[in-house]
Amino acid sequence: MQTGLIPNVSVDCVVFGFDLTNLNVLLIDRDFTKEGIVYHDLKLPGDLIRMYEDLDDAAGRILHEETGLSNLKLKQFRSFGSPNRLKRNEHDLEWLRQNDRTEEHIITIAYYSLLNMAELNSTKLIINDNVKFCPVNEVIDLVMDHMEILKGALEHLRLELLSQPIAFDLLPEKFTLSQMQKLYEVILGKTFDKRNFRKKFASMKYLIPLNEKEVGVAHSPARLYLFSREVYVKIMDGNMVNT
Amino acid sequence: MQTGLIPNVSVDCVVFGFDLTNLNVLLIDRDFTKEGIVYHDLKLPGDLIRMYEDLDDAAGRILHEETGLSNLKLKQFRSFGSPNRLKRNEHDLEWLRQNDRTEEHIITIAYYSLLNMAELNSTKLIINDNVKFCPVNEVIDLVMDHMEILKGALEHLRLELLSQPIAFDLLPEKFTLSQMQKLYEVILGKTFDKRNFRKKFASMKYLIPLNEKEVGVAHSPARLYLFSREVYVKIMDGNMVNT
Repeated sequence: MQTGLIPNVSVDCVVFGFDLTNLNVLLIDRDFTKEGIVYHDLKLPGDLIRMYEDLDDAAGRILHEETGLSNLKLKQFRSFGSPNRLKRNEHDLEWLRQNDRTEEHIITIAYYSLLNMAELNSTKLIINDNVKFCPVNEVIDLVMDHMEILKGALEHLRLELLSQPIAFDLLPEKFTLSQMQKLYEVILGKTFDKRNFRKKFASMKYLIPLNEKEVGVAHSPARLYLFSREVYVKIMDGNMVNT
Repeated sequence: MQTGLIPNVSVDCVVFGFDLTNLNVLLIDRDFTKEGIVYHDLKLPGDLIRMYEDLDDAAGRILHEETGLSNLKLKQFRSFGSPNRLKRNEHDLEWLRQNDRTEEHIITIAYYSLLNMAELNSTKLIINDNVKFCPVNEVIDLVMDHMEILKGALEHLRLELLSQPIAFDLLPEKFTLSQMQKLYEVILGKTFDKRNFRKKFASMKYLIPLNEKEVGVAHSPARLYLFSREVYVKIMDGNMVNT
């Protein structure tokens, strides 16, 4: 294995999922043993890119190999290349020593993906204990610089939420305005006044009210909406750009 | 030199400049000789990252080494890693052969930067024939996949122009609404109705009208404006997010 002369390249994937309550992120257990004690640290799915492999292909391959998920729309958002990004604490150093990789400089190209968990067929995930969705606000520590990568992805997600119709990649196909408000609240980390939020979004022509209500809820069932990408694109095309 | 086993990493820099007429991009002559003929192909500033070098540091170092420009705000926008990205035509292949690099797979991390050319002190640029600003719409061919990188940067620039106050990084500190309209037009590749454009932007509280007019122009001098980032941030903070 070549190390020590030129930087190596990896991809890491931040897969966000919304389960109508929390914004979650997909994490993998990086366990290793030292002096008989097993340590379970959490990491983002990620691995080295192969020689002559395309970046997007590598991201898809690695996510599939490590989690079982496939056909996700993965989008690059930033690269991380600080020379000390692999060595953030004693566990990282020990893991690098055990894997004979203490001299490496790995530049990672970070991808992110949005998953509608309500419609996720859980059989698509490799069902073993080392892959799981965790609420983002409960993640306090990850291996190496993965916390920084997660924060970068979250920042990117917030910006996109305010400028592009990505909320609908995280919501079920048919959703209530309350579910949509909850999504905005958990991503932006704020609470919104219910009446103002509804007033603002109910007037958006790309939200199509259905003659259907939600089922199986304890409270009085709310109206379901559908997002029309077609209407959205038309509205955007007619905006500022055509002044 | 290590090649052929793991991908190498480079940075490439797309430096945009606006001269009140054209959107320009900074290019470098990659000349090489074959059978006595000198070929002048154009490339973006860029080179390999050193082992243990930080990405942003590498971008700054390489841009400075190749063009003389320093202290520019360089922002990553995407990585390009297609395994055949270096070999787009016969010139590329010949250049790779002459430099003994035909087997390489180089993943490049692309940066972009915005430059107010009106205030650029040209002495900051290494003054030699192989570094120059070219109007983006006159660039029809670059080495390797640099055309694709330029197009990606342009796409990114257009999105940012519509969602963030980056126009003011490209304009002089004091500018007229006509200059601002010209900038929007050259970046977005559209023409705008002058009255509508002025009406829209003159009402933006972050554009501060000055009691000053432009000087040294043939037409009747127009009012100058200043961009207030402080007001802009306040307005944005008060927007949708606080519904």
